[in-house]
Amino acid sequence: MHSKKVILCIGTLDSKGPELQYVKNLINGKENFRALVMDVGCLAEAYFDADITAEEVAAAAGTTIEEVRAISEAGPATRIMTAGARKKVQELYESGAFSGVLSIGGGTGSGIAAAVLQELPIGFPKFMLSSQKIVQAGIRKYVGTKDIVIMPSIADIAGLNRLTVDSLQKAVGAITGMMDTIIPESFEKPLVFMTMTGLSTGCGLAVKSILENKGFEVGVFHTIGVGGETFEELVKSYPVIGVIELGMNEIGNELFGGLASAGPHRLEAAGEIGIPQIITPGCIDILNFLGPETLPERYSDRTICYHNPQATLPRVNADELRLIASTISEKLNRARGKVKFLIPLRGFSSIDCEGNDFYDPVANNAFIDTLQDSLRKDIEILKIDANINDVEFSESVVNEFLKIL
Amino acid sequence: MHSKKVILCIGTLDSKGPELQYVKNLINGKENFRALVMDVGCLAEAYFDADITAEEVAAAAGTTIEEVRAISEAGPATRIMTAGARKKVQELYESGAFSGVLSIGGGTGSGIAAAVLQELPIGFPKFMLSSQKIVQAGIRKYVGTKDIVIMPSIADIAGLNRLTVDSLQKAVGAITGMMDTIIPESFEKPLVFMTMTGLSTGCGLAVKSILENKGFEVGVFHTIGVGGETFEELVKSYPVIGVIELGMNEIGNELFGGLASAGPHRLEAAGEIGIPQIITPGCIDILNFLGPETLPERYSDRTICYHNPQATLPRVNADELRLIASTISEKLNRARGKVKFLIPLRGFSSIDCEGNDFYDPVANNAFIDTLQDSLRKDIEILKIDANINDVEFSESVVNEFLKIL
Repeated sequence: MHSKKVILCIGTLDSKGPELQYVKNLINGKENFRALVMDVGCLAEAYFDADITAEEVAAAAGTTIEEVRAISEAGPATRIMTAGARKKVQELYESGAFSGVLSIGGGTGSGIAAAVLQELPIGFPKFMLSSQKIVQAGIRKYVGTKDIVIMPSIADIAGLNRLTVDSLQKAVGAITGMMDTIIPESFEKPLVFMTMTGLSTGCGLAVKSILENKGFEVGVFHTIGVGGETFEELVKSYPVIGVIELGMNEIGNELFGGLASAGPHRLEAAGEIGIPQIITPGCIDILNFLGPETLPERYSDRTICYHNPQATLPRVNADELRLIASTISEKLNRARGKVKFLIPLRGFSSIDCEGNDFYDPVANNAFIDTLQDSLRKDIEILKIDANINDVEFSESVVNEFLKIL
Repeated sequence: MHSKKVILCIGTLDSKGPELQYVKNLINGKENFRALVMDVGCLAEAYFDADITAEEVAAAAGTTIEEVRAISEAGPATRIMTAGARKKVQELYESGAFSGVLSIGGGTGSGIAAAVLQELPIGFPKFMLSSQKIVQAGIRKYVGTKDIVIMPSIADIAGLNRLTVDSLQKAVGAITGMMDTIIPESFEKPLVFMTMTGLSTGCGLAVKSILENKGFEVGVFHTIGVGGETFEELVKSYPVIGVIELGMNEIGNELFGGLASAGPHRLEAAGEIGIPQIITPGCIDILNFLGPETLPERYSDRTICYHNPQATLPRVNADELRLIASTISEKLNRARGKVKFLIPLRGFSSIDCEGNDFYDPVANNAFIDTLQDSLRKDIEILKIDANINDVEFSESVVNEFLKIL
């Protein structure tokens, strides 16, 4: 039947054959679903015939499975299968051959699958059943900036037993449930993207609330590194009419080795596509680290905010703020759309306020002076005598945003 | 209708009210499901009336919501709500009030929910929609040793927009799908639990294969820290007839600060409940770290195996092996059931073999000598002239296991 929904099942049929077969049978046993199995194994013969064989995956990478099997190192062999799998899956996706994806594997198999799944768009149902290795190693490399659902397998995915069978059943249940529950909702309001982090939440929620009352839809991104990366990617693929930046901490994190870097291209996408931007120095007074043990020695003499057990935030100093200002200017000077820079003179974050030991107007002035010197002259800088989270500031953000739309 | 399956929905109704309401309506709109909402918010009034209110949660923790709201620090307030939520959920679980759980929250809300979800047994459907904070911070503290399915929300869970609505729909789809796809399978074969890690996989797969052919069911645990923790927990709650230890690396990791520690109680559960154990020194020649940057300075002069980009393994030396031996002996000496210790004289792991620079029989002999001195005299030590991954060794493991059953 053509009306069956196809689930692409990715795994290594040399080492996880029985598990993939179990999943295939479970899916094919459902009335509305059909499995399409892709083999990414390169150690030995497949346990059963895949719909897309390891031979085809290797061929898509420009080689043969025999050559891949002859490579003794796991790294290079895995990279070839990853490249081939990405190419095959992209072709299949473009031809509409499947409408959801399920991967099953240990650390290595999940690594290959992760590279493939991360190529598929946000909203496309993706489920990864993996070993507990990803619990230990962290999921950032596996999910990247995507909405990949992760299930840690409690027992190793090594054979069918009561623990693995339970996980496999739930994995199939979850992906089919995700594919079944797609209720189209119409979103017709103009879409605004906004960044913020914990220390500018007061401003963010106020701006969001005012904009929503005025008929806008607001998507918020949490600037802890992966959030800014996601924001930059999505600005290019969604019909965003403008952006508001209240979380700019990722710039300093990238420059100075903090743990919330969003990579070197943060603050570039909106400028490239030419949509209007309201920029603020929201939260540039901090760098982000996780537990206190992750704070590098070089920041140990700073004023430090222990925000929560997984958020240790050293104060950024004047020299660093100068470099942040020139970096921001360099990016904004290339923007093709309208840009307006709003500065809250009484502090860039909730802790950078009078009475708190993070309050440092001298350092902040180093940022402001450098910004004024380096920013393109037609980009207006507006100074507001308030803290970023004060009502006056959030109202100004909205007013100025509406003016440049 | 009493036949509807109840999903416990956990969230903070002060900050995530609209999102929880959306989820509640989506679940209640399904024919076979009903939502039971628990409010764990302690900042402000609830957005709508929960089935289990924040007042009740605070009361379960022995206080009032007014007192919790009066606490200015997030940490202590959160701990109170966590304690109350755990108590309430345990009561509800024991009375059979729900058969699946869905939590929705940012870092803090997910932290509360994680503590609750981790109390529920493996196999009970658990789904957590969380912010990207958990992508940055790692999921280990959120999932612990449990099968909690994790979905990172791409946009911050801050209001309903096309991105968050898509995530909420998929979260509901996944949990309902997981609850629907529970096909009872009968497992009547005797159940054996086995540990191994990458470097003893050869032995592990051979042992597993032989045992399965002989009519056993084998559950395998990957000894990377959380795997050993899970193993210890499950040994106590499953009808395990015996254990085989081919991954003992977590003992050294606990003693010497490696990243694969399973805590201080590793290697104790089987002895406590008195089931037979085959013990080997599988993989005690290594400590586990992640990327090379995670290797402490004190191990930089060791022989190091760069197993994969997320596995940097320094060689354990003779002094450390002596302490590992006495630690293992001390634990096994307390075992109430039969124990047999099998030693592969030609190496404890796949890299600890002749010709490889990890091969160090002198260091290994330090382990063997200490073990012989410190182990209870009625625990037999059997030395086999093979590497752990050689066929002779895996056959001996099975033979000796069958003897002590």
